[in-house]
Amino acid sequence: GLQRWLREQPPHEIAAELSRLDTAEMAVPFRLLDKERALDVFEELDPVHQQEVLTGLRDSAARELVEGMDPDDRARLIDEVPAKVAKKVLAGLSFRERQMTAALLGYPENSVGRVMTPEVVALHRTLDVSEALRVVRTKGRSAETVYTLPVVDDGRYLIGVISLRSLVTGHPEQRIDDLTDVEVPTAAATDEAEAAARLMQEANLLALPVVDSENRLLGLLTFDDALEVIEAADTEDVERQAGASPLGQPYLSASVVKLARSRVVWLLLLIVAATLTVNVLQYFEDNLAEVTALALFIPLITGSGGNAGSQSATSIVRAIAVGDVRLGDLPKVVWREGRVGLLLGVALALIGLLIGGLLVGFDLAAVVAVSLVVVCTWAAIVGGSMPLLAKKLGVDPAVVSAPMVTTLVDATGLIIYFMTARVVLGL
Amino acid sequence: GLQRWLREQPPHEIAAELSRLDTAEMAVPFRLLDKERALDVFEELDPVHQQEVLTGLRDSAARELVEGMDPDDRARLIDEVPAKVAKKVLAGLSFRERQMTAALLGYPENSVGRVMTPEVVALHRTLDVSEALRVVRTKGRSAETVYTLPVVDDGRYLIGVISLRSLVTGHPEQRIDDLTDVEVPTAAATDEAEAAARLMQEANLLALPVVDSENRLLGLLTFDDALEVIEAADTEDVERQAGASPLGQPYLSASVVKLARSRVVWLLLLIVAATLTVNVLQYFEDNLAEVTALALFIPLITGSGGNAGSQSATSIVRAIAVGDVRLGDLPKVVWREGRVGLLLGVALALIGLLIGGLLVGFDLAAVVAVSLVVVCTWAAIVGGSMPLLAKKLGVDPAVVSAPMVTTLVDATGLIIYFMTARVVLGL
Ligand SMILES: [Mg+2]
Ligand SMILES: [Mg+2]
Ligand SMILES: [Mg+2]
Ligand SMILES: [Mg+2]
Ligand SMILES: [Mg+2]
Ligand SMILES: [Mg+2]
Ligand SMILES: [Mg+2]
Ligand SMILES: [Mg+2]
Ligand SMILES: [Mg+2]
Ligand SMILES: [Mg+2]
Ligand SMILES: [Mg+2]
Ligand SMILES: [Mg+2]
Ligand SMILES: [Mg+2]
Repeated sequence: GLQRWLREQPPHEIAAELSRLDTAEMAVPFRLLDKERALDVFEELDPVHQQEVLTGLRDSAARELVEGMDPDDRARLIDEVPAKVAKKVLAGLSFRERQMTAALLGYPENSVGRVMTPEVVALHRTLDVSEALRVVRTKGRSAETVYTLPVVDDGRYLIGVISLRSLVTGHPEQRIDDLTDVEVPTAAATDEAEAAARLMQEANLLALPVVDSENRLLGLLTFDDALEVIEAADTEDVERQAGASPLGQPYLSASVVKLARSRVVWLLLLIVAATLTVNVLQYFEDNLAEVTALALFIPLITGSGGNAGSQSATSIVRAIAVGDVRLGDLPKVVWREGRVGLLLGVALALIGLLIGGLLVGFDLAAVVAVSLVVVCTWAAIVGGSMPLLAKKLGVDPAVVSAPMVTTLVDATGLIIYFMTARVVLGL
Repeated sequence: GLQRWLREQPPHEIAAELSRLDTAEMAVPFRLLDKERALDVFEELDPVHQQEVLTGLRDSAARELVEGMDPDDRARLIDEVPAKVAKKVLAGLSFRERQMTAALLGYPENSVGRVMTPEVVALHRTLDVSEALRVVRTKGRSAETVYTLPVVDDGRYLIGVISLRSLVTGHPEQRIDDLTDVEVPTAAATDEAEAAARLMQEANLLALPVVDSENRLLGLLTFDDALEVIEAADTEDVERQAGASPLGQPYLSASVVKLARSRVVWLLLLIVAATLTVNVLQYFEDNLAEVTALALFIPLITGSGGNAGSQSATSIVRAIAVGDVRLGDLPKVVWREGRVGLLLGVALALIGLLIGGLLVGFDLAAVVAVSLVVVCTWAAIVGGSMPLLAKKLGVDPAVVSAPMVTTLVDATGLIIYFMTARVVLGL
């Protein structure tokens, strides 16, 4: 039954299943789990669900869970709960844990300081290998990681890091100084967490030392937290790319109203922008009245342009995120995307010629074909360059969403289409 | 100068800069780097760029680099180069390295076997802690990781794993049996690499033991390779979501023709599908001729519907990828998205009423408003359910791209719009 399942499943599996329960049931399994396991499961939950669990538990049980959390996970929880709950949670903590959490909460949102582990095993540079191993043996059981060990000078100034592997394979009497990697990358506690996490991924680091402005050791950013930062950043990018503001919580845990709120802003902005399409069509209304068949291809032209533009925008946003494309690449990107758009436009034009030829005759088909070439080229250039322009303005490139590009290309695509029609059909 | 820069930068930074050079220049810095550093930099390069470097080096230098690579990285390189080059590369290898690489290449594409590390330090279950540490000391320097150590029985049957931390903090005479975590997750070499990598992320694992069908140890999937698998899978999802086939290489390293090829398939399919919009409009051509102003709002209606549908599709695809939504959630998702779409539709309808009222009068404005409500609700339901339906059919949910949803909603949205117009305007 449930008891057995709770005993045998790994904590992240239990957490994943619990996340799918209703708020009211969320706390029940925690009354059945033993203390250590309850904590392991609790730490795997999203802050939204952690809050629900705490609400459903007796005060003393809730306090115990929060007391046992890692300071970084606790800081995140407190960050997400209402101020009143946060106060109560902090008040229930022991002095030491409260202090650590308060320190993390003092760093700016989305900074490395918020997600680092302040409890690290630091080694003084004057130790030898056997002494260092003794320190690991005494302090290592409770530390979050002992595989990357910061080496410090008097006053906790960071010298570098030594790996547990070097300690274990090193000679007992060797000074750790000699084994310390001093060219190690570090992050300041006030740095962007996403940049630090991506650096760790690039450099294959298990942990990144975090320092203050004087290079004094403050903690470590560990790979598991770095991974979570990257996953959250990627989810944000994906949401922005679809024209929504980041939800900041798992899909099923958000209410319908919250989902709608995250999406409505861009939709409203874009429908206002789409008024431009109405104006453009009004401007060409005489041509439309004269050749009603022109209306037939409006969705096909704007749709294809929007698709081509979305493809470009999305691939550039991703290329920026993973570091393949930089700000200075703008001219290169425009030149590449322009040629890609042209190729795609020609391919689409051939199909357009066929469809138009079969359905409405050659003249209009020619208009459709020429428009597709121009619109696709234009859409690819717009879609490719806008994320880089956004970045240049200090805006997240991911706000250049598929819907935004589509809306822009809709209006400009119509102008291209009708101008082409005027020329080709002699209107 | 260059010499100094090459000496001081971390390998991943050098690799990142090299990736931006032209093919012809790519190999130059490798002639300046010392052997060990050259290998570190080489291993950080994308296979596309590795190939370019090899082409630019003398045969002996190229052979040396490939011989020094980790078997998993080498397998990926060989996988991506033309068959002729692959043969030559393999032929230049020592017997041992060739064998290991061939073994990895024997596993299916995208499987765990392709990305695992076959060189692992395995400990026999009968060892005690001090003996185990001695094994780590002798074999550990060259192994890719020593932090997660597989524990095996006679015949290399996997018992579980022990962490180096447990060894270091354990009593020297304790049998490692007692410290071994036996409930550890494992992956079969033939499993999907992406699923195994996501499991590692969920469970915060540094390394995952890989076994054959008899539970014999084959290797370890290490966190750095897992991260690369996840990054590649996410990039693929993003590309598919934008209606492109995965490029499989960094943006700037792909030729314009290759970029166009990756995007053209969906664009062509979608423009053929868009023919439906022409048919729909032909069907309603009399209504269009009667009230030309109806044409003015076509892009606004289809655009808004497409935007709402893209938002839904994108958020569900991401929720599936990170594990928040599962197949069985289809009814729940439809019910949620339907209500979200309705809310959004009402919000847009109010703006639509305003725009329509100002530009063309109340009657048509009412048609626009009602259509927006219905189209948005429909678009959200379509966008939300299609990724799950794709998954049910065994297709990657990410193929339900924003362009696909947009194209679908274009045609159906037009039907909704004109039917509404007929009812409201009495056509
Ligand atoms: Mg603690
Ligand atoms: Mg890497
Ligand atoms: Mg942590
Ligand atoms: Mg954590
Ligand atoms: Mg971002
Ligand atoms: Mg990378
Ligand atoms: Mg080797
Ligand atoms: Mg995790
Ligand atoms: Mg590897
Ligand atoms: Mg690797
Ligand atoms: Mg995928
Ligand atoms: Mg559209
Ligand atoms: Mg997760």
